Amino acid sequence: MDAPNGSQDTEQTLDSQVKAFFDSAPPLQNRNDIIQKLNHFIQLNSLSSENGIGKRIVCVTSGGTTAPLEQRCVRYVDNFSSGHRGATSTEYFLKAGYAVIFLYRRGSFQPFCRSLPDDPLLDCFEATEGLNIQVGEAYSKAVKTAIVDHHAAVNSGLLLKLPFSTIFEYLQMLQIISKPMKDIGPRAMFFLAAAVSDFYVPWKDMVEHKIQSGSHILDVKLVQVPKMLSVLRKDWAPVAFCISFKLETDSNILIKKARGALEKYNMHAVVANELSTRKEQVVVVTIDDKITVQRDKSKADDDVENPLIKLLSQRHSAYIEDSKRMR
Amino acid sequence: MDAPNGSQDTEQTLDSQVKAFFDSAPPLQNRNDIIQKLNHFIQLNSLSSENGIGKRIVCVTSGGTTAPLEQRCVRYVDNFSSGHRGATSTEYFLKAGYAVIFLYRRGSFQPFCRSLPDDPLLDCFEATEGLNIQVGEAYSKAVKTAIVDHHAAVNSGLLLKLPFSTIFEYLQMLQIISKPMKDIGPRAMFFLAAAVSDFYVPWKDMVEHKIQSGSHILDVKLVQVPKMLSVLRKDWAPVAFCISFKLETDSNILIKKARGALEKYNMHAVVANELSTRKEQVVVVTIDDKITVQRDKSKADDDVENPLIKLLSQRHSAYIEDSKRMR
Repeated sequence: MDAPNGSQDTEQTLDSQVKAFFDSAPPLQNRNDIIQKLNHFIQLNSLSSENGIGKRIVCVTSGGTTAPLEQRCVRYVDNFSSGHRGATSTEYFLKAGYAVIFLYRRGSFQPFCRSLPDDPLLDCFEATEGLNIQVGEAYSKAVKTAIVDHHAAVNSGLLLKLPFSTIFEYLQMLQIISKPMKDIGPRAMFFLAAAVSDFYVPWKDMVEHKIQSGSHILDVKLVQVPKMLSVLRKDWAPVAFCISFKLETDSNILIKKARGALEKYNMHAVVANELSTRKEQVVVVTIDDKITVQRDKSKADDDVENPLIKLLSQRHSAYIEDSKRMR
Repeated sequence: MDAPNGSQDTEQTLDSQVKAFFDSAPPLQNRNDIIQKLNHFIQLNSLSSENGIGKRIVCVTSGGTTAPLEQRCVRYVDNFSSGHRGATSTEYFLKAGYAVIFLYRRGSFQPFCRSLPDDPLLDCFEATEGLNIQVGEAYSKAVKTAIVDHHAAVNSGLLLKLPFSTIFEYLQMLQIISKPMKDIGPRAMFFLAAAVSDFYVPWKDMVEHKIQSGSHILDVKLVQVPKMLSVLRKDWAPVAFCISFKLETDSNILIKKARGALEKYNMHAVVANELSTRKEQVVVVTIDDKITVQRDKSKADDDVENPLIKLLSQRHSAYIEDSKRMR
C-alpha cells in the first residue's frame, strides 16, 4: 500500500487535532441561550432590509483568548489585546449598514466606548452637593456617545454581544455562530480580529488543583491550537467572506507572514498590522493586491478602521455580486 | 575553609535571587511621581489624628500580577484574582479608621464598586428621550455608593490608589511603598492580598519579538520569583504589622500551607482561604492561634471582610501597644 499523499496526510492530521481540541474542551456554559439569541438575531436581520434581500451580517471577533494552565483556573497564559480594533471596526460596520455579532473578550473595549478612560464610572462621574452624581464636563460628550449610541445599536437589534474568556469558549462559540450564518450565504462576513492563543494545555492534561510552587523552575508545555481558520473557511463557513489578521512586532516579516496566512487558510483578505503603528496604518493583503490603508491625519478623530471597513465593505459587495453570477 | 552553614547559605541564595530579579526588571514608569504621591500621603496621614499620634496606615495589595513571556508584551502568564478581597477589605479598613494605600492590578475590583455589574457604564445607564442619560432604577443605589463613597475617600486624602500589571511593577512599587512606611513604625500594616506570580521569565532572557507559532509544542521555562515576603518582613518593613494570604483549591493542605508560610516568612498572621468558600469564611492563622472568621449570614449584605478587618485591627492595636512597652 502506498503512503497517503501529503495533502491528505495534513488534512487527516488537522481533523484529528480539531477532534482532540473539542473533545478536550469543557462544555460551554449557556450554550442553548447563545444559540437562541443567535438564531433570533440572524433571522431578524436577514429579513429586514429596504431592498428585500436582507442585511449583510458580520461576526467581529475581538480581544485576546486565555489558555488555562489549571482546571480550577488560577493561572493562565493570556494574549494581550485591548480589543480596540474590534470595537472600533464594529462601529464602522454598523455605519456601513451591517448587523454585527460582536464576539469579545470579557473586559475588552466595547463599541462606542473607546474614548472613555480606564474606569469610566469612577473617572467620569463626580459627586455633587446633596450626594447627587453628575458627569464631569471633560467627559460629557464621550459618556453620552457611549451610552446613547451603544444602547441604540443593541436595542434596534443590529448589535449582538457575546463574551468569551478562554480559547475553549472562543472556538466553540465561533463554531456555533457559523451554523446559522450559513443561511445567509455570501452576505455573511467573518472579521477575525481576536488575538487567539496559538498554544493551549488540553483540559484532560491539566492538574485539577493549583500548581504548587515548590520547585525552582516551572516548565509549561503547551500544544498548538489547531489551525481553525482552515476549518472555518472549509467546513464551518465555506460561503462567507472571511478576513483574518496578522499582528507582528517585527515589520520585516509582516507582509510575508500575512501572504502566507492568506494562502494557507484561503482567506479573502488578511489585514497585516505592526504593533507600534497599528492605529495609523494597516495593509490589506488579497490574492492579487496589497493595499496600504491609512487614517486621515488631517482629522484628529479619524480612525484607520474608517477607510479599512469602507474597503472591505466594497470588496464584500463585489464578492456577493460574483457569487450571484456563479450560481 | 568550612562550608557556610545552612541558614547563611539560604540567605545568600535569597539575596542573589532578589538582586537578579531587580537587576532584570525593566525600570518602573512614573517612579518619581509615585514616590512624591506616597510621601505626601504618608506625611499627611501620619500627622492628622484626634489624639495627635497619627493614623494607622495600611498598604492593601489586590488583584493578580502578570509575568510577561515577551519583552514587547503580547503573551503573558496571568494569575487569576478579581481583587474582590482587597477592594472589600479597603472599605472596612477605611471604616476602622485607617488610611489606605491601595496597590491594585489595573482593571481589578475597586473599593465601593463591588456590587456593580461587569461593565458599569453600559449596564447601569440608559438613554432617555432627548438623548439624555440616567441611571437605571435597579442600579441607582450601587452607582451612587460607588461614586460618592469612593470619591469621598480619595478626596479626603484617606485612599491612595496605585495601579500595577506585571510582577516587575508590583514588587518595585511594594519596595518603594515600604520606605516611607518605615517612618510610622508599628502603625504601618501590610495586607498582602494580591495574587503574586510564583514564576517569571527574567527580562533579559525574553525574546524581544512575538514568539513564532511554527513548532507544535511551546515549552515555557519560568524561574521562581524570590520569596519577597521574607525580604519585606526582614529588610523593607521590619517594624510593620504584616499579613499575608494563602489561597488553595485543595482544603486538605490549606492550613498546613498557611502555617508553613507564617513561620517561613515570619508574618504576624496568615489568612487562609479556600477558593470555593472564600467569600463565606477564612481562617486567621497566627503563631499561637487559628481563628475561623465567618460572615454574618443573617445579614444579606455582610462580608467576611467585616469581622476579618475588625480582628486584624484589634491585633494591630495590641501589636502597637506591645511595641511601645518594648521600647
